[in-house]
Amino acid sequence: MSTAVLLISCPDRKGIVKEIASFIADNNGNIIHFDQHIDPQKGIFFARVEWDIKSFRIPREKIEEAFRPTAERFSMSYSLHFGDYRQRVAIFVSKQDHCFYDLMQRFRSGELKGEVKLVVSNHPDLKPIADFFGVPYYHIPKTKENKREAEEKELALLEEHGIDTIILARYMQILSKDFVNRFRNRIINIHHSFLPAFPGAKPYHRAYERGVKIIGATSHYVTEILDEGPIIEQDIIRVSHRDSLEDFIRKGKDIERIVLARAVKWHLEYKVLVYGNRTVVFD
Amino acid sequence: MSTAVLLISCPDRKGIVKEIASFIADNNGNIIHFDQHIDPQKGIFFARVEWDIKSFRIPREKIEEAFRPTAERFSMSYSLHFGDYRQRVAIFVSKQDHCFYDLMQRFRSGELKGEVKLVVSNHPDLKPIADFFGVPYYHIPKTKENKREAEEKELALLEEHGIDTIILARYMQILSKDFVNRFRNRIINIHHSFLPAFPGAKPYHRAYERGVKIIGATSHYVTEILDEGPIIEQDIIRVSHRDSLEDFIRKGKDIERIVLARAVKWHLEYKVLVYGNRTVVFD
Amino acid sequence: MSTAVLLISCPDRKGIVKEIASFIADNNGNIIHFDQHIDPQKGIFFARVEWDIKSFRIPREKIEEAFRPTAERFSMSYSLHFGDYRQRVAIFVSKQDHCFYDLMQRFRSGELKGEVKLVVSNHPDLKPIADFFGVPYYHIPKTKENKREAEEKELALLEEHGIDTIILARYMQILSKDFVNRFRNRIINIHHSFLPAFPGAKPYHRAYERGVKIIGATSHYVTEILDEGPIIEQDIIRVSHRDSLEDFIRKGKDIERIVLARAVKWHLEYKVLVYGNRTVVFD
Amino acid sequence: MSTAVLLISCPDRKGIVKEIASFIADNNGNIIHFDQHIDPQKGIFFARVEWDIKSFRIPREKIEEAFRPTAERFSMSYSLHFGDYRQRVAIFVSKQDHCFYDLMQRFRSGELKGEVKLVVSNHPDLKPIADFFGVPYYHIPKTKENKREAEEKELALLEEHGIDTIILARYMQILSKDFVNRFRNRIINIHHSFLPAFPGAKPYHRAYERGVKIIGATSHYVTEILDEGPIIEQDIIRVSHRDSLEDFIRKGKDIERIVLARAVKWHLEYKVLVYGNRTVVFD
Repeated sequence: MSTAVLLISCPDRKGIVKEIASFIADNNGNIIHFDQHIDPQKGIFFARVEWDIKSFRIPREKIEEAFRPTAERFSMSYSLHFGDYRQRVAIFVSKQDHCFYDLMQRFRSGELKGEVKLVVSNHPDLKPIADFFGVPYYHIPKTKENKREAEEKELALLEEHGIDTIILARYMQILSKDFVNRFRNRIINIHHSFLPAFPGAKPYHRAYERGVKIIGATSHYVTEILDEGPIIEQDIIRVSHRDSLEDFIRKGKDIERIVLARAVKWHLEYKVLVYGNRTVVFD
Repeated sequence: MSTAVLLISCPDRKGIVKEIASFIADNNGNIIHFDQHIDPQKGIFFARVEWDIKSFRIPREKIEEAFRPTAERFSMSYSLHFGDYRQRVAIFVSKQDHCFYDLMQRFRSGELKGEVKLVVSNHPDLKPIADFFGVPYYHIPKTKENKREAEEKELALLEEHGIDTIILARYMQILSKDFVNRFRNRIINIHHSFLPAFPGAKPYHRAYERGVKIIGATSHYVTEILDEGPIIEQDIIRVSHRDSLEDFIRKGKDIERIVLARAVKWHLEYKVLVYGNRTVVFD
Repeated sequence: MSTAVLLISCPDRKGIVKEIASFIADNNGNIIHFDQHIDPQKGIFFARVEWDIKSFRIPREKIEEAFRPTAERFSMSYSLHFGDYRQRVAIFVSKQDHCFYDLMQRFRSGELKGEVKLVVSNHPDLKPIADFFGVPYYHIPKTKENKREAEEKELALLEEHGIDTIILARYMQILSKDFVNRFRNRIINIHHSFLPAFPGAKPYHRAYERGVKIIGATSHYVTEILDEGPIIEQDIIRVSHRDSLEDFIRKGKDIERIVLARAVKWHLEYKVLVYGNRTVVFD
Repeated sequence: MSTAVLLISCPDRKGIVKEIASFIADNNGNIIHFDQHIDPQKGIFFARVEWDIKSFRIPREKIEEAFRPTAERFSMSYSLHFGDYRQRVAIFVSKQDHCFYDLMQRFRSGELKGEVKLVVSNHPDLKPIADFFGVPYYHIPKTKENKREAEEKELALLEEHGIDTIILARYMQILSKDFVNRFRNRIINIHHSFLPAFPGAKPYHRAYERGVKIIGATSHYVTEILDEGPIIEQDIIRVSHRDSLEDFIRKGKDIERIVLARAVKWHLEYKVLVYGNRTVVFD
């Protein structure tokens, strides 16, 4: 089924739902999903509308133009997507393979809708996995000295492949502010703690030292402030005194995989709306 | 804030959202929540719409009449409710007090919106709790022989108090088919297992015997078939070989309380739609 | 069944289990539970041993003396308890009633083994609940100015009633260092976040602002550093953009209740060992 | 570190812990883990003891013989294992790859201790994955007619490779009673429901039809009665009306992977004791 998706946010006022629904119905579209949310404190209206465009009277390439007057009347921020478009994805990895593997398998099985166009890493270790899945692997070592050049190489590759979304699958490098701004709300990271607990390095070590009874993982959009971007998804698992630091790390990997995969899935299906430093996830 | 709530289900077709939203916007209502769901297998459209009626042009008592033509055009099943109406509730208990207590505290704190008008029990044990909370307690003993008469007494009380919703807070008696039909989708039960595992009596004993690693609780609407009504909410807790049968029962009580409270809350806020033997819960 | 419980920690070395088990077996005791743990990093041995003392050859009041030589040989820190002793408990509350209620019901049902001897509060609000459960309620208002005097009154009451354990059931006051030291590892607090995220005041507000997808609660022993004491138990619940700040608070209450009740239960059954700033919980 | 592990069950009586601990201490072993459990209803004692054998006075190959008199005195069922032995594992698969992948990655990373010696399947589909991981893949088609012959081939392969443990990673065939008895408590299956709910075929379909709010997975030892063997591990995930049948299946896969991996890990580390139809898991 071919569908169009509108992600909308605007100041809340009367008649917005009617206008959006009329735009679709009057042009012979059938709404499949209509998800709406209002932040009553801030008076903002959010919506995700997905409709069947098989018999829609406006051709795909004209929909945005046709919707614009409505959007302007309500001062909407909006984006239009198509359900059958497969986003072009880059995965950044370091030495740890568990999230990378997991993502590749989910892309291959079709659970994640998108095409992994390239893998970037500052280490050569995971190349065999990329080979197995038939994806080009670019080894771009990074040091303090060459960081800017390395990022330029990366940006060139991303542009060349027309990348829509970047997934940091336990990529242990911090991206520059410039890099992040080029892909605002399109870089997804997995952090191995339930943020805001244990931001930064070695969260499992610190969780172990603190003697917590649960550990977790957090997937978020990357912003220029480390581990403070909008949270997309979090989950946790119980630990006890019986668990060593190695057990924390092992158990954490299971949660990292799942949390990252959920966040990526929602992102690729245009179910995430960012506002301020928070997300609305229309799951 | 005064709001109206429409719960709607009907065959899916184009234009439904537009019609509902137009009905509200054209009469100067402001939509607060618009939740919609489509069962694609069965082609059914579901919605829950809540709107601010402060400046609504149609007075409350005329809204249903005004909406009827729209409903008929789309063959809608629907019900209209008002957010400021406090449902009149009866709680049926037996000897166990944990769910009863918990509910009473939540009603008193305002977390559950409604008024507990009476408590019915086949045992006198929990009267002191009802007294503490200032709710009349009717001790109506039930035996195989007097079941019909006892139910008639109960039904008379329910009618006298204009009861909207009945909560079975670990009430260990089976209600007759006639009784159930008088309150279709308005009797909420808590069963102490994750149904459909362990329906019927002594689920914790059977869970213990089976050696399961999780136990749970299920809140559902009561139908004439025991423990097979539409499920509103379920949750679980882990157990291990370290847990005795008594531990199963103790841990289960925590889950029972929470699962029942959630189901009751959603029901009282008109967030539950029943279709076939399933529920749509617009949480 | 009458049982004795030994909680032991000491430097790990060969033969400890044998010595403890021999002490019990040679005096005709039957071990019910033997839980042991070794921190391999720090080389510390921990154990909780519970045995039936019905036919034990050493009378209760002489057991500690009889065990001392063994303890000294292995440089053990240890404490001896009896399963049939009911600890004397004080509950400190403020204005929120959900944890207080919950604890009182669990004590009354026998789920929590102990006797609530008094309730202390800086507000008069919860007195009716204490009355219902038949427990004396002391209203001791606290201001910056009278804090020392107020604590002296409290300490006098605690001494008078021979209190073993203090539960802070959403008591919003910070206890002085002196007070805390008098009841080291015997004051249990519930904090309404998954520490170390959101220590201090208004954690739900900050969780809401941060846009987290899970909220939690943490029960810990109180130390002189706010919200940094040894964690006994934690648990969480999911939230989403659909949840308002009020929903965060409401959902959090359920978790607070359960987490606090679990921690208190383990403490009262002598299942918690503190070392450094961490706990071993032999659940 | 070289360790020995004793798994023991016997009628409970005084002095068992002392005898086991003495056997180890008197021969200069250092206990690393001592886990014990008593089923008070049935009066059975269970233990798992792991000790460092570096300076143990009895050589490995004589330990069993040396322990036998103790075992006989207490009528113990017991088994002796060594921590540095890597079990020889066979994985049986069908067409679904998610559990197979996941296991292979965990074996390769060392998280699961063992060597996957062969993969058996009634379909050729997953051969490329086995190739990638360098494990021989035997395609043995099964039909009603050739089931006995096929199993004979499988048994020959298992014998030839000296297989200790078989993992059914979503292997959709039912093994014969004879086959199962040859590997009693050594065949681990993953069932895609929280048993005893939805045993047999198509559990997700039935869960979807029933309208449950949680789905789960169960890992258990295979017995001659389908899906009724001793449960090793279970876990669940929430679903809602928003989830289609496909979502149930997708979400379930994550739980299947994790539950199976946990069960296999515990089994390979000799942490699971079976008695009656239940397990004691010394995690």
